[in-house]
Amino acid sequence: MSEAQAAQIEVSEIQALVDWLATFGGTSEGGVTRLLYSKEWVQAQNALKNKMEESGFSTYFDQVGNLFGKIEGKDGNNEVILTGSHIDTVVLGGKYDGAYGVLASYLAVKRLVERFGRPQKSIEVVSLCEEEGSRFPLTYWGSRNIVGEYSPTTVKEMKDKEGISFTQAMTQAGFPYQEYKAKKRDDIKRFIEIHIEQGSVLEKSGLDLGLVSHIVGQKRFTITLTGESNHAGTTPMMERKDAMVCAANAISELTSIAKVEYPSLRVTTGQLLVKPNIPNVIAGNVSFTLDIRHHEGSVLDAFCLRAKELLHQLASTSGISIDIDLWTDIRPVPLDTDLHEKMKRAITSRGLKYTTMVSGAGHDAQVFGQYIPTTMLFVPSKNGISHSPLEYTDSVNLEIGITVLMDYLFELAY
Amino acid sequence: MSEAQAAQIEVSEIQALVDWLATFGGTSEGGVTRLLYSKEWVQAQNALKNKMEESGFSTYFDQVGNLFGKIEGKDGNNEVILTGSHIDTVVLGGKYDGAYGVLASYLAVKRLVERFGRPQKSIEVVSLCEEEGSRFPLTYWGSRNIVGEYSPTTVKEMKDKEGISFTQAMTQAGFPYQEYKAKKRDDIKRFIEIHIEQGSVLEKSGLDLGLVSHIVGQKRFTITLTGESNHAGTTPMMERKDAMVCAANAISELTSIAKVEYPSLRVTTGQLLVKPNIPNVIAGNVSFTLDIRHHEGSVLDAFCLRAKELLHQLASTSGISIDIDLWTDIRPVPLDTDLHEKMKRAITSRGLKYTTMVSGAGHDAQVFGQYIPTTMLFVPSKNGISHSPLEYTDSVNLEIGITVLMDYLFELAY
Repeated sequence: MSEAQAAQIEVSEIQALVDWLATFGGTSEGGVTRLLYSKEWVQAQNALKNKMEESGFSTYFDQVGNLFGKIEGKDGNNEVILTGSHIDTVVLGGKYDGAYGVLASYLAVKRLVERFGRPQKSIEVVSLCEEEGSRFPLTYWGSRNIVGEYSPTTVKEMKDKEGISFTQAMTQAGFPYQEYKAKKRDDIKRFIEIHIEQGSVLEKSGLDLGLVSHIVGQKRFTITLTGESNHAGTTPMMERKDAMVCAANAISELTSIAKVEYPSLRVTTGQLLVKPNIPNVIAGNVSFTLDIRHHEGSVLDAFCLRAKELLHQLASTSGISIDIDLWTDIRPVPLDTDLHEKMKRAITSRGLKYTTMVSGAGHDAQVFGQYIPTTMLFVPSKNGISHSPLEYTDSVNLEIGITVLMDYLFELAY
Repeated sequence: MSEAQAAQIEVSEIQALVDWLATFGGTSEGGVTRLLYSKEWVQAQNALKNKMEESGFSTYFDQVGNLFGKIEGKDGNNEVILTGSHIDTVVLGGKYDGAYGVLASYLAVKRLVERFGRPQKSIEVVSLCEEEGSRFPLTYWGSRNIVGEYSPTTVKEMKDKEGISFTQAMTQAGFPYQEYKAKKRDDIKRFIEIHIEQGSVLEKSGLDLGLVSHIVGQKRFTITLTGESNHAGTTPMMERKDAMVCAANAISELTSIAKVEYPSLRVTTGQLLVKPNIPNVIAGNVSFTLDIRHHEGSVLDAFCLRAKELLHQLASTSGISIDIDLWTDIRPVPLDTDLHEKMKRAITSRGLKYTTMVSGAGHDAQVFGQYIPTTMLFVPSKNGISHSPLEYTDSVNLEIGITVLMDYLFELAY
């Protein structure tokens, strides 16, 4: 980016908005905790609604609490280009994850209207009500309602950690569960999401933007190994049924296979629990998680099959019984290649540096991407940190994202 | 053993005594919890004292609560042959660990005196007050006092999990801390301990007895690996500082090296703790224990050196910082070879089947063995189980141990 370009950018406006939104649920540690249907969440959505109205958007909530700010197109038909992200956070999350995407969309559309008047096609900015699944075990509640994947029965029995039911929380937030009916929207023809990278690829490469080609598929397993708890001193090595050693062999081998044979695949054991977990007692029981991600379904499936075979073989060799529980299974989503080319032009015409990349994290774009042409753009994350009060992207990068989003929306809607 | 020999044995007496002692601290699960200086422990020691007195032993407690039952030798000098074990247990332990050694010694000496009258040399049966270290972080309190390794300052600041001080518990049990002075006994010239194996070597080989040549040395380490906690989806495999993978590689490789290159060595990771321990977050911190045992100091040292080198290398390759904390360091103890030969003769002259073996567990014999000629004998443990209500050795095996102990004491003392 040239200095001249940088000078054109109103650097402070987006940072001011990010800081403003972070006051709703702001924590003493500098982060944000804004859980679905909480008081802070309700205040944030309403404040956003007011801000959009002040800027000339016509606003409305849908029945689950997604907030829309619409600029009606001149063409008069009912087709909509949707752009936005989510405002819910993890517990003690950062200011940028989700929030940036909502605010960038708002600013981009506001500036377009200010400069070029009403677009030909209708544009809606969306502040999706729930992506993280931090309060209830329910990810993508906002976007999945829009595409018709959820219904009243989905959440009927759901409770948060404090025993508050989903239906009660929803109703108290101003969205009566009794009135909620599943309703798929057919008018949305495009979805665009801009988001912080949550990784360090862009920062390390000195790039301005990441253009997302795919959002990875994810499988998450819990592996439970049951051997024999025994005395660490009196049990010969060859007679042990040591669940810890079996788990270590599995984690070690699977990581090595992934690195050598499956480029782009990511496998993680983030959680491991040992019983009885005493230094001088051989572990009788170890359970650990495997989080496996890849952007191609066939590769993901092939690795998971290989992993299962290896796990069964390692357990069997050690006389250990094994249980493999698959508890998350999300297919990869390729994003729209036509929109992809349009976005590339928007980026390169500004002389910006970008890379095409896979999103290793899940996003609302992967929900929309299964139904409608969708595109997604990343801005750099400082040190790759997210879901933390340390989450940060500087104003220059935040503004670059808005500029490209404006160019792109201009091409689509004007 | 022939059927004729089996018939000679009073099978029921030892089992009755084991069951009787297990009533002091007996649990509803069928095991025993008898912690140092607890009410159950005090009752058990006093009941044993009464039983020994009824059988003609002269009894006394030392200042820390070790109970002695003495049969004065005809030779009139002050040299003592000591035989016994401990009566404290782990929480929810079994009936046999320690208790069998005390009761077998009592029965062996009682029967010898009944059949052959007073011995030439004095024999004392000891019920040691503390071996396990289950209430206070203090193993071998009983035997280490006898050999002069402990003093009042050792326990001055010590507290149990409920905050009760060692000095208070000791005083309330009838052994006033104010009167306790460190006093090494010089009159004990031999120590003999009989114990359950706590492993399954004897049972699997169909042997009657194990003659212990060495008690293993032990080193226990806590390894703390600090990498970088990061997003499981957005962090490429090659850029991770994954403490879990580093720990898995270490456990896997060290186990493999031990099995292939260090026969008789035992290495165990019984405890492992992960932070933050969340499925979709790369582990930033993993700490795990290494319990390493071998009966030769040089082998133990060589493996530990190798382990440290490997750990540093694995951590360094992964960009992970490492801390290695050695918190237990017990040297191996070879037992007395002259007594060993005597015991072999006692066993073979009865036509019994035995093996010479290393004790992988620690015992009071390893404390005495550093100062005086010591011998140790194992009887089989059913399924190798110990420190559990399931701990069991059948009466025939218990009686075989007593018979051999009698023969052996006869040779030493008559």
